[in-house]
Amino acid sequence: MTVKNEKIAALSDAELDARHAEKMRKKKAARDKIIATKTQEKGLVIVHTGKGKGKSTAAFGLVFRALGNGMKVAIVQFVKGKWETGERQALKRFADDVTITAMGDGFTWETQDRQRDIAAARAAWERAKALIADDEHQMVVLDELNIVLRYDYLPVDEVVEFLKTSKPEMKHVVITGRNARDELIDFADLVTEMEQVKHPFRAGIKAQKGIEF
Amino acid sequence: MTVKNEKIAALSDAELDARHAEKMRKKKAARDKIIATKTQEKGLVIVHTGKGKGKSTAAFGLVFRALGNGMKVAIVQFVKGKWETGERQALKRFADDVTITAMGDGFTWETQDRQRDIAAARAAWERAKALIADDEHQMVVLDELNIVLRYDYLPVDEVVEFLKTSKPEMKHVVITGRNARDELIDFADLVTEMEQVKHPFRAGIKAQKGIEF
Repeated sequence: MTVKNEKIAALSDAELDARHAEKMRKKKAARDKIIATKTQEKGLVIVHTGKGKGKSTAAFGLVFRALGNGMKVAIVQFVKGKWETGERQALKRFADDVTITAMGDGFTWETQDRQRDIAAARAAWERAKALIADDEHQMVVLDELNIVLRYDYLPVDEVVEFLKTSKPEMKHVVITGRNARDELIDFADLVTEMEQVKHPFRAGIKAQKGIEF
Repeated sequence: MTVKNEKIAALSDAELDARHAEKMRKKKAARDKIIATKTQEKGLVIVHTGKGKGKSTAAFGLVFRALGNGMKVAIVQFVKGKWETGERQALKRFADDVTITAMGDGFTWETQDRQRDIAAARAAWERAKALIADDEHQMVVLDELNIVLRYDYLPVDEVVEFLKTSKPEMKHVVITGRNARDELIDFADLVTEMEQVKHPFRAGIKAQKGIEF
């Protein structure tokens, strides 16, 4: 490393520029070649998992991108109160193109009632199935479904089987929540793990409007 | 594990429910206690990095959440063409509250011109500085700034120093891009690494409207 850095330091600006242009030319050629092989279009099953921030927020970003492209989007919240004020206010500007369904109750540590949680999860999933199978929406977000699957309130096999058999070819389904099941990861097309590197909670900073809700 | 699972399997549904209620009661008490200690409000420096998807998309989600909360937001794109069609169309519905500045040219493998990239990075940063320091916007997104810092087109020390000295206390700054510099991570309040677990590109699927742009 040191030798290499000294070598680079010895180069003139013009030499650095020429070297850069050559490197970037190669990079562009390689990228263009790869992109040319990617020709298939299909509706994706996307999973955002991990302990870090950004799982639901990135799903929310996908929702707005899709809405901006004129798509119709449905959102099913498996944990109540997760997408609140800011999101809902912003979505009002797209009221004709977006459907939001919230599971009736809170969840787990709020309800402290396992049977009620199971019934609510089942009701939300029945609604989700209709939205996944219809030909009206181009994207369906199942927010915090992973939590429900992790607690075994819904069998993961049933969810994967439904996606496999009943999701229209071109429909995108976005699933969020930490602790995604392996069965779901295996089936998904795109999986991102949001890893927490640093969190302001540790420094005594509370959840804030515009950032957390 | 087997022993524990067999024990759980031997429990009746009513016993499982009671055990669940007790566990959740404790969890809620612990959470409430933690939340009570978080009292500080401040503008956050947020970094989305890592090789996975969702860095810019989650920033975009934060933008809409903030807009939904009535905040004013500014976006500076350090790589041209990254936030396109969908985002821009969706942002039009909030035209009074959002400012977008795109760096004049493409970047790196597209331009293949180091001096032009450095000049464009400098121009975008000068614009960013004005937006970070003003009292008009409550959130500023510096999309793909990490790439510019990684290539040393802007000195990271200059960026951190400016954030430290000139960012108003309550302003949120969101910085995206892979390979975030350690100096920036050290200074940031909230850092998430988006890790790629699975990507559809590998399966020959191309970038699609509504998902990638």
